Parts: sequence; C-alpha cells; structure tokens
Amino acid sequence: MLRQVSEEYRGYRTAGVRLTEEPYPMGERRGATFAEMADAIHRFDQAHLVMLVEEHLVDRAVGAAMLAALRDLEPDRVLTTRLEVGGGTHSGENYLIRLLGEEVGGRLHLGRSSGDLAEVGLRMTMRRHLLRILGDLVAFRQVILPLAEAHRASVMPGYTHGQQAQPTTYGHWLAMWAHVMARDFRRLTQLYERVNLSPAGAAILTGTDFPLDRHRTSELLGFTAPLPNTLDAIHSHDLQLEYVSTLAVHANNMGRLADDVLLWSSSEFGFVRVPDRYCSTSSIMMQKRNPQAPQATKAIAAMATGAVTIACMGFKGSTGLPIHERGYVESQLWGISDEVSRSLGWWTDLLPALRVNADRMAEMAGAHWAQATDLAGVLVRQRKMGWRTAHQIVGIVCRLAEERGLSPADATPELLDEAAVEYMGEPVGLSQSAITAALDAAQFPARRTLYGGPAPEALTRELADLGQQLAMDEGTLTARQADLDEAASRLNEAMDLICRSNGTSGR
Amino acid sequence: MLRQVSEEYRGYRTAGVRLTEEPYPMGERRGATFAEMADAIHRFDQAHLVMLVEEHLVDRAVGAAMLAALRDLEPDRVLTTRLEVGGGTHSGENYLIRLLGEEVGGRLHLGRSSGDLAEVGLRMTMRRHLLRILGDLVAFRQVILPLAEAHRASVMPGYTHGQQAQPTTYGHWLAMWAHVMARDFRRLTQLYERVNLSPAGAAILTGTDFPLDRHRTSELLGFTAPLPNTLDAIHSHDLQLEYVSTLAVHANNMGRLADDVLLWSSSEFGFVRVPDRYCSTSSIMMQKRNPQAPQATKAIAAMATGAVTIACMGFKGSTGLPIHERGYVESQLWGISDEVSRSLGWWTDLLPALRVNADRMAEMAGAHWAQATDLAGVLVRQRKMGWRTAHQIVGIVCRLAEERGLSPADATPELLDEAAVEYMGEPVGLSQSAITAALDAAQFPARRTLYGGPAPEALTRELADLGQQLAMDEGTLTARQADLDEAASRLNEAMDLICRSNGTSGR
Amino acid sequence: MLRQVSEEYRGYRTAGVRLTEEPYPMGERRGATFAEMADAIHRFDQAHLVMLVEEHLVDRAVGAAMLAALRDLEPDRVLTTRLEVGGGTHSGENYLIRLLGEEVGGRLHLGRSSGDLAEVGLRMTMRRHLLRILGDLVAFRQVILPLAEAHRASVMPGYTHGQQAQPTTYGHWLAMWAHVMARDFRRLTQLYERVNLSPAGAAILTGTDFPLDRHRTSELLGFTAPLPNTLDAIHSHDLQLEYVSTLAVHANNMGRLADDVLLWSSSEFGFVRVPDRYCSTSSIMMQKRNPQAPQATKAIAAMATGAVTIACMGFKGSTGLPIHERGYVESQLWGISDEVSRSLGWWTDLLPALRVNADRMAEMAGAHWAQATDLAGVLVRQRKMGWRTAHQIVGIVCRLAEERGLSPADATPELLDEAAVEYMGEPVGLSQSAITAALDAAQFPARRTLYGGPAPEALTRELADLGQQLAMDEGTLTARQADLDEAASRLNEAMDLICRSNGTSGR
Amino acid sequence: MLRQVSEEYRGYRTAGVRLTEEPYPMGERRGATFAEMADAIHRFDQAHLVMLVEEHLVDRAVGAAMLAALRDLEPDRVLTTRLEVGGGTHSGENYLIRLLGEEVGGRLHLGRSSGDLAEVGLRMTMRRHLLRILGDLVAFRQVILPLAEAHRASVMPGYTHGQQAQPTTYGHWLAMWAHVMARDFRRLTQLYERVNLSPAGAAILTGTDFPLDRHRTSELLGFTAPLPNTLDAIHSHDLQLEYVSTLAVHANNMGRLADDVLLWSSSEFGFVRVPDRYCSTSSIMMQKRNPQAPQATKAIAAMATGAVTIACMGFKGSTGLPIHERGYVESQLWGISDEVSRSLGWWTDLLPALRVNADRMAEMAGAHWAQATDLAGVLVRQRKMGWRTAHQIVGIVCRLAEERGLSPADATPELLDEAAVEYMGEPVGLSQSAITAALDAAQFPARRTLYGGPAPEALTRELADLGQQLAMDEGTLTARQADLDEAASRLNEAMDLICRSNGTSGR
Repeated sequence: MLRQVSEEYRGYRTAGVRLTEEPYPMGERRGATFAEMADAIHRFDQAHLVMLVEEHLVDRAVGAAMLAALRDLEPDRVLTTRLEVGGGTHSGENYLIRLLGEEVGGRLHLGRSSGDLAEVGLRMTMRRHLLRILGDLVAFRQVILPLAEAHRASVMPGYTHGQQAQPTTYGHWLAMWAHVMARDFRRLTQLYERVNLSPAGAAILTGTDFPLDRHRTSELLGFTAPLPNTLDAIHSHDLQLEYVSTLAVHANNMGRLADDVLLWSSSEFGFVRVPDRYCSTSSIMMQKRNPQAPQATKAIAAMATGAVTIACMGFKGSTGLPIHERGYVESQLWGISDEVSRSLGWWTDLLPALRVNADRMAEMAGAHWAQATDLAGVLVRQRKMGWRTAHQIVGIVCRLAEERGLSPADATPELLDEAAVEYMGEPVGLSQSAITAALDAAQFPARRTLYGGPAPEALTRELADLGQQLAMDEGTLTARQADLDEAASRLNEAMDLICRSNGTSGR
Repeated sequence: MLRQVSEEYRGYRTAGVRLTEEPYPMGERRGATFAEMADAIHRFDQAHLVMLVEEHLVDRAVGAAMLAALRDLEPDRVLTTRLEVGGGTHSGENYLIRLLGEEVGGRLHLGRSSGDLAEVGLRMTMRRHLLRILGDLVAFRQVILPLAEAHRASVMPGYTHGQQAQPTTYGHWLAMWAHVMARDFRRLTQLYERVNLSPAGAAILTGTDFPLDRHRTSELLGFTAPLPNTLDAIHSHDLQLEYVSTLAVHANNMGRLADDVLLWSSSEFGFVRVPDRYCSTSSIMMQKRNPQAPQATKAIAAMATGAVTIACMGFKGSTGLPIHERGYVESQLWGISDEVSRSLGWWTDLLPALRVNADRMAEMAGAHWAQATDLAGVLVRQRKMGWRTAHQIVGIVCRLAEERGLSPADATPELLDEAAVEYMGEPVGLSQSAITAALDAAQFPARRTLYGGPAPEALTRELADLGQQLAMDEGTLTARQADLDEAASRLNEAMDLICRSNGTSGR
Repeated sequence: MLRQVSEEYRGYRTAGVRLTEEPYPMGERRGATFAEMADAIHRFDQAHLVMLVEEHLVDRAVGAAMLAALRDLEPDRVLTTRLEVGGGTHSGENYLIRLLGEEVGGRLHLGRSSGDLAEVGLRMTMRRHLLRILGDLVAFRQVILPLAEAHRASVMPGYTHGQQAQPTTYGHWLAMWAHVMARDFRRLTQLYERVNLSPAGAAILTGTDFPLDRHRTSELLGFTAPLPNTLDAIHSHDLQLEYVSTLAVHANNMGRLADDVLLWSSSEFGFVRVPDRYCSTSSIMMQKRNPQAPQATKAIAAMATGAVTIACMGFKGSTGLPIHERGYVESQLWGISDEVSRSLGWWTDLLPALRVNADRMAEMAGAHWAQATDLAGVLVRQRKMGWRTAHQIVGIVCRLAEERGLSPADATPELLDEAAVEYMGEPVGLSQSAITAALDAAQFPARRTLYGGPAPEALTRELADLGQQLAMDEGTLTARQADLDEAASRLNEAMDLICRSNGTSGR
Repeated sequence: MLRQVSEEYRGYRTAGVRLTEEPYPMGERRGATFAEMADAIHRFDQAHLVMLVEEHLVDRAVGAAMLAALRDLEPDRVLTTRLEVGGGTHSGENYLIRLLGEEVGGRLHLGRSSGDLAEVGLRMTMRRHLLRILGDLVAFRQVILPLAEAHRASVMPGYTHGQQAQPTTYGHWLAMWAHVMARDFRRLTQLYERVNLSPAGAAILTGTDFPLDRHRTSELLGFTAPLPNTLDAIHSHDLQLEYVSTLAVHANNMGRLADDVLLWSSSEFGFVRVPDRYCSTSSIMMQKRNPQAPQATKAIAAMATGAVTIACMGFKGSTGLPIHERGYVESQLWGISDEVSRSLGWWTDLLPALRVNADRMAEMAGAHWAQATDLAGVLVRQRKMGWRTAHQIVGIVCRLAEERGLSPADATPELLDEAAVEYMGEPVGLSQSAITAALDAAQFPARRTLYGGPAPEALTRELADLGQQLAMDEGTLTARQADLDEAASRLNEAMDLICRSNGTSGR
C-alpha cells in the first residue's frame, strides 16, 4: 500500500514528496566521508533501536527483525551493503526498508535526525582516529627513549638562528622529541574527553517529544555521557576546530623533526644518512638519495595548517547555517588523521634506522667556536670577572680569530690577552691548559649537569622520568580502549536479549 | 677601566666587539612586543639574581645593590626606564650597567641567555593574558545564566541550513553559549598547565655549567616546575601554536554568536535590537543603526584564524632556525589576546542589554511550518504509523501548502487526508483539534522535556548544572591567581632578606 | 644482455642499482595527481622524441618505433596503460622499455629529468583547467546579462552592515556579478600568459649538455616560448601560489553570491526560492527545503582559501628543498579547479531558475525607512539646506518614527517639523506631497541615473558595455584554444613525418 | 541656530540625533588605518568639492571657502589637524564645520557616503604602496643584473630535495631572482590597472540622485575611469583579496631567497657571509653572527600568508555584510605593504654586500658526485648507449663509491667497468681521461650552453634580455607616476580657478 516499498527505495528525498526534482550532481566528497563513518552509523542504528525497544517506542518483534537484519551485515558487509543502498547517514533505514518494507524499516528513525546521525558519526570517528594516533605516539616514544640513552654521549653542534650555537648531544635532542610527543599525547587525550560525549537524541537541535533515554544510548555507544544541551550538541563546531588544530600542532612538531633530519642529511652537514627505503633517486642524477618521508612529513604539516583555515572558514556563519559544509571540512579531518598516523609510523621505523655519523658531528661541534661560551666561564671563575666583561673579551677573540682564520685549537693566552687589553686595557693571563680545557667541545655538554641539561647523567635521569610518564600514558590509552570494548559488549548483549526474547538469532 | 661603563652603554651588541657595523633598521614590531613582557622580564631579573646570590654565584652585596636598583623602578617606572635604556630582554642589564657600572651590573646575566629571557617572558605574558581571559569567560557566563532562565519560555525559530527548522526558545540558545564558553574555559586552563612551566636556566639550549638552581627560580616566579629538557624548553614552539589555536577556537565561537545577533537584528528578522552604544549610523542613510561590536567580533575571529597560519608558518624550519621570527609571531599573540578579551567584555555588556522582540520571534516560529515535525509525531502516536510514513505524508502536506499558499493555521483534516491518499492510498482521519494542537508552535519546545531539551523545566535543570560548573571554574581561577600572588610574596621576601642583610632597603 | 629488459621493468628506482631497499608505502595522493597529468606527460614524451630525432640525438628508426608505440595508446588507453606500468612521470619510458626493450625505450629520457617532466605536466594541466574555467566564466556571464536586463525595474532593498541601506534593483545586483566575473576572467587570462611557457629542456635545474632545441619542443606543445632560465623554470613556485590564490579570489567571490542567495531564501527574507533540484529536505523536518549548492559553493571558498595556506607553507624552504611536497600541493590545485568549475556550472543553471518574489522585495524596500536618504535630498533642493543639516533632521525623524512605531507611510510635515525644530529651532515646512514622493521606494533607484547607478536606463547602458566586454573575452578564449589545436596538429604532423619516412604508420 | 556648530563638533554620529548613547570603545586599529589614508581622503574632499562647484551643486563662494580651508592645511598639517577633529573619513567635514560652521562645511558631503570615502581612500592608498613597491622591485633588479654577470663563472652546487644535484653557477642563481621579481612586477602592474579605477560617486551602493559628474572626479584624482556599477564599486572585495594575495606571492618569493642565504651562511655550508650590519650576536655565545634580516624576511612571508586568510575570512558574508571588518583587514594590507618594501630595501643592499666564498662553493660542487650526470652523458656519446642504461651503470658506480668511500677524483675505468659488468654483463672501456674530464665540476655548467642554461655565454645572453625587460618596466613605472603628477596638477588648477574667481587664494 505504501508507495515506495520496493527494491528501489532511495530514501526520503524523493521527487514527488516534498520536492519535485531530482537532485543535482555534487561531486564525490561526501561518499568518501561516509566510508569513514559507516561503522559508527551502523552501531548508532543498533543502539538507537535497542533504546527504542526498551522504551516501548518500537515493538519488540519489529525491533528484533531490524536488529537481526543489521547484524546480518557484520562484520564485513556493513560498508558495501550500505553503499549499495545509496550510502550516507540514512543507509541503515534504506537497507531496512528495502529488506523489510517501510512498515517495519520506516520505524528506525523515530526521534532522530540527520543531525545527530552525523554528529554521532563524527564523534565516534574522531574517537577511532584519536585512539589510533595515541597508540602511534606511544610506539614512537617507546622507540625514542632507548635511542636517546644510547646516544647520551654523542656530541654534536646545537643551532640557533641556523648558526652553530653550542655543543650538545644527539641524545639530548632525541629526548626533546619524547617531551614534544608527550605533550601531543596529553593534548589529544584532553580532546578525547571532549569528543567522547553523546549527541544521540539531540536530533537536529531540540531533541524530540518522544521519551527517548539519551543516557542509555550514550552508554551503549561507549560515550561518557550525553551532551547536556541539544542545540549545542549539534551546532557548536568548536570540537572540529580543536580537533584539526590539535592535529596541526602535532603535524607541525613532526615537520620540525623532518626539517632537522633533512638538513643533517645534506652532504654539507653529513650528520645522518636516511635509510634507502625512505629515499628516491633521480632519473638524471644517479648519485641522488632523496629523503622522501621527511618531505612528506613536512607536506602533512602544511596540509594540516591549511585544514585549520578550511575548518574555521567553512564553519563561519550563524548557528545552523553551515551544515552542508560539514562534509567538506570532515573530509579534511580524516585525510589529515590518516596522514598523521602514517607519518608517525615512518618515523618510528626511520629514527632507529638512521645512520648517525658521530665522528662528523663531534668534529663540527668543535671546529667553529661553538664552545666559546665556556672560555668566558673560565674567566668568570678564575678571574672573578663579571659575565658581561668576560663575554665581550671572548667576543673580541672570536672576531680576531675569524679575521685571522684561527680555529679554537689555535687559541693562545696571547690572543686572549690581546682581546682583554683591547676591551679593558689589561691582560687576563689565563694559562694555555685552562684555555684548551675550556675549548674542548666534547666536555661542553658533559659539564652541563644541571636539571634538564645534556650531561649524560642528567639525561639518564630525564629519560627515567620520561619512561614513567610513558607508562602512565600507556595505561590511560589501554583504559580508554577497554571502555569501548565494554560498551561494544553491552550493546551486543542488549541486542541478544531483544532478539532472543523474540526467537531470532540476531546474528 | 672597562670600556663601556657609561651612560651611553647600549648593550653587548656593540660595533667593535664581535661585530663591526651598526645594525640595520628593522621596523617597530619588536618594541611593541617588549612592552607586553617588560614586567615579566623584570621579575625574572630579580628571581635570577636572588637565586645567584643564594647559590653564591654573585656576592650578596653586589646582588643587593642590583636588587635595590631594580626595585627602585617599581611600580611605575619599570617599562619607561627600560625603554629609555633601549628596551628589549637585556634592558635590565643595560640599566644596571649604566647605573652601577659593568663591574656590578655585568654580573646579572650569568648562566642565562636571550633564549630563556625571551621564553620566560613569553610564558609569563601568556599566563597573564590567559588569567585575564579566563576571568572574562567567568564574567560572561555569570551574565548568561540568569538571562537564559529569564527567557526559558521565549519561543523562537531554530535554524538549520539557514532555513527555519523547528521552534525552540531563546533561553535554550543562550544556555548553549554557557556550554561553549565552559569548554573554552577548560581548554584554556589545560593550556595554562602547559604554559606555567619554567624555562629559566635553560639558557639557549644546553643550560650552563654554573650550578644554577632551576627549581628555585621556577618557584620564585610562580611556575609549577622547571621544564625538564633545556633544548625543549626553548625551541619547541608547540606552545605558541596551541596558544593561538585555542584563542582562534574561542574567537570563532564568538564570531558565531556575533553572526546570530547580526542576522536577528536585520529588519527582515527583527528579533533583537542591539543597543545604540554598540551601533554606528551612516553619513548618508540616517535611518541606519549598524551593529559595530558584532562585526568587530567577527573580524577578530578572522584575525585569530590568520594568526594560526602565521604562527605555524613562521615557526616552520629546523630546530633553532626560526628565532627572530618569534617577535613577529608574538606580536600576533598579544594583539589577538587583547582583542579576545575586549570582545568578551562587549558581549557581557551587550547581551543583557539586547532588546528582544519575543512577539516577533513567537510569530515567526509558527508562521512557516517549522512545527510540522510534531504533526508527523501525532500520526505515529495516534495511528501507530512508522516514522518515515508519517514524515512523507506530512512532507506532501507541506508541498501542497506551499503550492496553495496555506499557513499552518489553514491545515485541515482534508488536507492531511489528501496527502495520505497520495502517499499510501488511504486517509488518516486525524481530527482538527489534534492537528491544531500539534501545530501550536508555542507548545513545540515545551513538549521537549528530554535531557538537554528546550522545555522550560529541562532548561532549568540544565542551568543548575551549568551554575555548579561555573562555581567550580571560578574556584580554579581563584586558586591559580592565589598561586601567583604567593609566588610574588615569596620573591619579595627573598629580596628583602638579601637586601636587609646587606643594609639596603631594596625599595 | 641488459638486466632489466622484461615485462617486469619497474623503472630506474630499482633496489640493487643506486639504492638497496624497496621504497616505503606512501599513500594514495601521488597517483591521483598523475591521472590529471597523464595526457600532458604523454604529449611531452612525443614532442621530446620528435625534437631528439630532428636534432639527430635519437636515430630516426628508433624514434619512429617509440612514437608508433606511444600513438598506439591513443586516444583511450593512455592513462590505463601508463597506470599498468606503474604510473608517474616515467610511465612512458617504462612502457617503451617493456614493449621495445631498454636498448630502444631507454633512449626516451635523454636530456630530461623528472623535474621538467613534472613541470611540463603541471603547466599543461593548469592550462587545461584554466581554459575550462574561462569557458565556465563566459557561460555564466552570458546568462547573467539578459537576466539583469529583465530585472532592471525589480526594486529591492540594498544592504550594508547587514541592515537595510537603500532601495536598489535586483537587476543592478545581477550586473555586479558580471563585473566581478569579468575581473576573474581577466585575472585568469593574465595568469594563463605566465602559465603557458615551456620548462621543457630545463631538466632539473641546469638543462643538459646535449644540444636540445628548447624552442622546438615549446612550439610542439603549444607553449608561447621556453622559460629563459632553467633553474627558475623548475624551482620558482610563485606560479602555483598565483594559481591557487587567483582561484581563491574567484571562489570567495562565488561564496559571496551564495551567501546572498542563502540569506534571501530564508523565510524571513523570502526574496528568492532556490529550485528543488538544488535543495535537500530533512529526515525529520519535512517542511525543509535546504539550499545545498549555495552551501557547497561556500565550502569551496573555504577549501580554496585553505589551499593558499597549504601551497605557501608547503613550498616554504630554500630553492630545491620542497620537491616531494609538490604532489601534495598539486592535489589541492586540481581538486579546487574541479570544484570551481562545477560550482560555476551550478550557478549558471541556478540563477535563471531562481524564483524571484518581486512583490516581497518591493514591499521590504519601502517598509523600514531605507528610502530616508531622499527625504534629506528634498530638503537640500527645496530649502537650500546643507547636506549635513538635512541629514541630521531626517535622522531625528527616523529616531522618532522608531520610538513611535511609524512607518514611512506615516511621515507627515508635522513630524519633519518637529525634528527640524529639535535640531535647529525652526520648522522646514515641506508639503505632504513632497514627503510622500521622496519616500516612494520604487522611485528611489529610478532617480539614480548617474553613471553606474541602478536607474533602468543607466543599467541598460551598463549592460551594453558588459556585452561588448564579454564578446571580446570570448574572442580571447577562442584564440587561446585555437593556438593549442594548431600546436596539436603541428606535433601530429611532425610525428607523421618521422614515422612515414621510416615506413611505420605511427598510428 | 544649528545645534552643533561649535568647536566641539564631533561629527554626525552624535548621541541625541539618530542614536541615544555614546559609542563603546573599540581599540586602536581604525586610527592606524586612517593615518595611511589621510592624504587620499583630503584630495577626495577637494576633488569632490571642485566637481560640486562645477556642477552648480555648491555655490562657488561656499566652495571656494571650503577649498581654501582645506588647502590651508597643506602640506604638513593634513594628518595632524584631521586627527585633532577626530580622524576618520569624515574628518574633512568635521574640520570645515568647526571652522566655517555647519551652514558652509555641512555642504561638503553632498552625494557621498562613508562608502565611497573609504573605497577611494583604499584605492589611492593601494596605489601609493604599489608604486613604492614597484620602485623597490626595479631597484632590486638593477642591483641583481650586474651581480649575476660578475658571478657568471662562480661554480657552486645546485640542490634538489635538499641534496646536491648538479654543479651550476652563483650567477645563474642570481639571474633566477631577476626573473622572479620581473614576474612580481608584472603581477603588481596588472593589479594596479584594476586598482586605479574610481569609486567616487558610488556613495554606498546606489550613487545619488544629485547630478554628480563621476568622470570628472575620477580624472581629478588620477584614476583611469569611474567604476561602472555603483554596487560593485563599493562591495566587491576581490580587489583586497588580490592585493594581499599578490603581496603574499612576492613575500614568499623573498622568503625563499632568505632561506637560501640562511642555509648557505651556516658553518657547514660556508658559502656566504652576511654583512655584520644585518647580524645580531648573542648575549651568551659571543662567537655568534645571526643573520637577522633574512629571518625577518621569512617572517614577513608568514605574515603575508596569514593576511590572505584574514582577508578571505574577514570579508566572508553576504554583499554589504562585512563593513566594519574592513578596518581590520586593511590594517593588515598596509602593514604587509610596509614590510614588503622594507625587506626589498634590505636585500638590495645586502646582496651586493654578501661575501661569497667561491673557493668553498667550487670545492663542494665537485666533492660529492653532483657531476655524475655527465659521466653517463659520455657513455651515451662514446658508446652509443641509451640514456637509461648509462644512467643505471653510473648509479651503480655511485653506490660502490659510497660504500667504499671513494670521491669523484678516485673514479677509474675499472670501477666503471665493474658497474657495467654488474648491470649488463660487459665492460664499457672508457678511458681515464674521458672519465676525469666528465667529472670536472667546473666544466659542468660551462657545457650547458643551451637556451636558459648556466654556461657563461648563455647567462650573458639571458642577462641582456633581462636588462631590456627591466628598461621597459622602468618606463611603465615612470609613466604611471607621471599620470598621477598630471592629475595632481589638474586638481590644483581646478581649485585655483574656483578660488581665484572668488578672490580667495586657496593657499
């Protein structure tokens, strides 16, 4: 009797009901976004149905038939079948109506809207990506910590303004990345807390006058709690902005890591050698080894930064104005998420495989006066001189050395005195051995035992703290994953109960 | 004896020491940034000196003389005097050398670098702006909550895709903003935790071989703890990126609020009237009342979004490469911070002063079929119909009504039956009274009593929760401010102790 | 004898030659980009071969064999075959080596690099997209001009600050878009001139020491001339930045058009009705007609703006540093190009199909004092008053009218005199008929006959000029397309000559 | 008799006329923007007045009095006096009313609006900045051309993917920048053509019903013609978007130049030495010479890129919605313009002063197999081998050399044969002298005499072409400046005529 119950049911937007024309062609973007969300939408369909049955808004037998049909697609036909019936957030309804008729399948959507479907899909998909990336961050940090320990005494130049600054160690540089990634982990877990709240039952902005149990749906989907304002639940896009911004911060961190490795792998630096598997060569210059993954990592940082612009600008407008824009913005979110995860995987493999030329690093650390700071330190200690005075005298030494082509190994008491006389009219009379010891680049980081410094023993302490922090973060991640597993069991049990009581298997 | 001890001491970058030419003119940007940081730099100078004296790295008498000279500038000559001696992070040293000679003042900088000076200045300035904005967010929320309660029954249309969606209430819309601002508060406090860590003693990347007590300096400046890796402390710019991104998220939230109010203040909507003090008029169109503050708020969102691009791109490069870029990026940070704070102030004043035309809102909520959803709901309840079937029938009603120019008040059982027959071949036979009740827009939100819905009693519950959350957040803010006050006292007492023991007042 | 001549030849980056490991997996982006460029790369392979044969750098027989093999793929197997042999810029060589052996196919690449392959592909692909978009712009303008003429007397309110400003006409608004699109046409043709220059023969940065004829290759590919510096030809990315910026300017223009139509299609404005084919409806709110294409158009503006960030940031770095980043940036360029073209198509169809409610527009133009300007004009004319005085008096009229709820139809000589007395102590004594005529909104635009104004006769003149400009631009576009057709013939003839002289058909 | 004629006249937005409250405080941004535009607004006031008098819309005597008062401020009190009366686009009226009373000064604004005032100010200010930057670009190119000629034989490595690619010359690299800047010049002159059109008389969107002569005002202000649609003239923001995008393209070009110089000035590269005047040193590392101007140049590129985002997003909205946002966007435009001009000045001074270490460059060009390409070329020539075969054999040579630590100077016939046998089972038998000649890095660029290549004679030809292009561009710039001078004379003569005929001096 109902007009559209047939294999060809294409959903509620049918020319001849509210609207009179077939829709215009829109391009491919939305389909791509749906594939990301299909599993989440599927589970929302199930959890919503369970709640409708429990609240007596759908007959148990009808609900059981729909649940059985939905479960029948699992585990591997969910996406394909849903795409066959047109894809999109309403593919569950379309499938059920085609299979069971509108009289049955048409009861799925009671009290929902495309709004909460899209938003539940968004948040569950964010959740999935976040957990994956959090896992990638853990794996990266697991690799970095022993590597830093192994390089606690690998002396190399540190840089500021792109110029040699002071000798430090490669291990200290590696440890920095464990801190950076620990902060990214923390930002993403804090974001996760905001993500993991349930919009289900908010419909499009006012909820519904049917007595839905929003707490129950939330629980069945593994959310912490329902969002407490139905308008806010659907139309406040700050979550998407925070999501993309936080990934952009991380991607830019990785971009800097990539820039360091790229610079150091040039012939002129010659500090590290990227493994062949991450390199291309050239069709004309056969000597080339071009580090590809680091360049890709930098490109991902650019993509993520642009995605922030896209999200902010895409969502600009009054509350509820930008709806269709979501598909465009979200296609960015998932693309960047994938790239970020992929990139973390590269580096977790690449960094331990990086061939480090410790000799070259150590040589360069001492060859260009980067260790000059400590010569001034000796003047402060041995001559009770103020820092600024010592600094200026050694500054003149550096100028004279540059003019005369002298290296630190050429530094003499006479040179130092010449500078001191120029600056303050009298010599300082430091011994050659004091000068030589001060200018020993290898000792420079080793002397820096202060909290957070590059001395081997300081670094070992730092790495121990980092290890404890990592263990805690692993625990946090495991707990979040367990919460979701538990919710999945809860949903399955609830479906079992409905289906069993109705004599269907639901599988 | 020292060459540069004179009134004209201009700092260590003097043509004739390391470099041989006067620097090129650079434009104004850096000076602007220093004014923001002057107090922070001043306190770092003091805390560093206290620690140097306590660690016996500077003689107590020398330290006391310098501390007395620094305190002499307080409270109101800090910035002006520092600008007189050239401004910048080294203005403390410049001032002390001019006043006390290089032999004394030249001892301030021991174990520091421009690096930790800039980074301490950055973090303390971030801290100051964050606390101000957190206070602004509290004030905004304090104003919103009673306003939402007052408007719990002010019915108005809700919108999606820029089209009327369903009737809701102005109070529900207002409550949404309390949630949005609560999230912004939380993001900013989580950021604050990452900001309030001490880079002091990290120098430029390796710290120093002088035995500084980094924990002591941290404590004297009110930081939670020293940053645990000296390279990371200075060269990881994710904090700036997070700072600007988080402000951008907030600014974009405010931009949406502004867009709502702008739209509703048009003659065509006629929902609200922005008070005269936030309006301009026109030099040619004297009837005009142009809402200025909302437009400014939107512009600030654009500025903040652009600042994310600037920060990400400005800091792109290998570790330690972008140093000079900081001044440019930071000038953005403080500008945006000020604008954000200013804008929050406008809205905290503007929203309660907004004249709301509740009659117009209510009229529009019922005039364009926004309440149609509930007519389908009646079919579901009274005719045990599936949602989709009911939805499609009412969809045909809406099409027919549009074609015939009928308003909801014109809806009859006959019209509904005509649609039902078209859709499924038989009438539904609803009574006129059922139709009329279903289409009463005023009852639409009132029926939505579910958790988070716009019904007055649901909103009152929601506002109670929001009030509790606000009280907790006020507590958090007060505690953070108290921490800083305590640290300020601690620093003052430490300075008193040094100065008193030396017979100087230090004031 | 050669090791890799076999069906499995996978290109020069083979583990065991320069590099020892298989490359890491990179994701899908590059493949997508290659599909865009395949035809261009194919033609470059042909043109390069022709030139090599003509310059006696490849034997005629060998060249003829390769040309015949390449032409054998035309017209419809070019992309598929090239993807079968691995895709990418070197798929021509891979195909030829698999088919003809390395002894023959290995001669294709003489004097080239991936660099000029990528850059030729880039510029020819840009060229193709630009010509398509230029055509779309012509089509759009062809539709707009008669539509504007038809609406030369459709009075409507104009807006500033989102508030009613003055009455104008819908035709004048439409004509604006013809100007905007004419500027976009001009920007894109100026860009086209910079795009259509040949990098062929620049190899990767220095060209080659083989005597290539760069002018000949350029001519065979339809370029205006070869680029005059081989380093600049490959590594200056300003062209990509200009390309994406220019599309972003256009996309933002379209976004504004979309915002106008969206606003006007709200129930509150009620000016226009978007045709059903560009609308969705809602799964819960069956009354909804959601304009989709306008929202998509706005999303495209956001995407294009973000792509500017991505391009600028992606290419940041020293000359030759960002190479691999190209693929990421270029995937943006082509995506945006397609979206821009698609969006132009929607609007060229949508605007003539937009149902305009001229009565509602006209009513609103006169209902809210938007016509007040001309009442002051009457005071200037009839009372020889200065503008500012007249403006302020009518400003008071507007305030009083708002306070008292008076519409323009209620304006009386007494009201005007009350305001005049308040402002300057004496009445102005205008007649009711003068007031009524001044406040006739329908006459407001009609009185504006000045150059560029909305009076019907002024608009008709303006449209005539726009028509002439459009005809010229159509001529320009036709000429550019003819240039390319001519070059295609030239290349085919050159290939025919080589193949015929060698007794192969080359087809 | 008029209420506000007094020293305290503050403009038409007076509490008590249309609006009843004093405006809220807005921050400083707008004032800054006005200072940029003050001269333009002043001249528009004058040109508008001249036209009003000529059209008999203002009495000659009244017009003469106002013109005399305006001219009285010239040349040096224009900005200060206008700021004294409140600044902003209406400061001319405010000044005239304060000085001459509302009866006279209140006649200035007839037929205008804030809209055309702002837009005329915008375009004349854009024009001024563009001409300055065009002049800067000319100066830069004048310096680059002889420098490139001087370095036509300075061999250095070229880079791709951050790796040594092939030997080239420093002169060829310098010449690239002349092309880049020539393109920027062309983009900016094409933009100038779109900028230099007159919005005067468009008022706010419909013009006026007073018979203004828009062509006359346009001519008096040096515009090419009036804009042909009054709505388009004021509300189409594509010009601002193009302006900021075009500057961003240029700024990113300069950023790349800066990145090259920064990289090459590292100790590890050691190619160039930035003059002391563009360097800072460090407060702790006295050996440091930190290139500041290059970093500032990169920061400017980031600022300009962010400004594109700000402009696109700031102007997003329906026609006429974003008005107040202009001030925010425009403050970006002028700031970026100044920075761009300043940066060009630095580099025009810095590049000729850069100390180039040609020996180090030449050494590095030959030390890491960058010249390997030409060894394959010899195999192609002498052994009639296909390119790919030769390329792969030499690829194996490079791998073996890397494994064995051999430099190009160590290449022997035996090594080459070992690789050839590995690749194709037989030796190639090249002589040592052929190998040595092929691997002579100094000869590498010299052999590349093709069009656009780095060979000295090719470069000299290229520079000659660049010189001709520069001469033409200088001519274009001079002509544009002459147009404006002529318009200024025209305006002065018109003012003289009015004032003289009225017996006032007008000076």
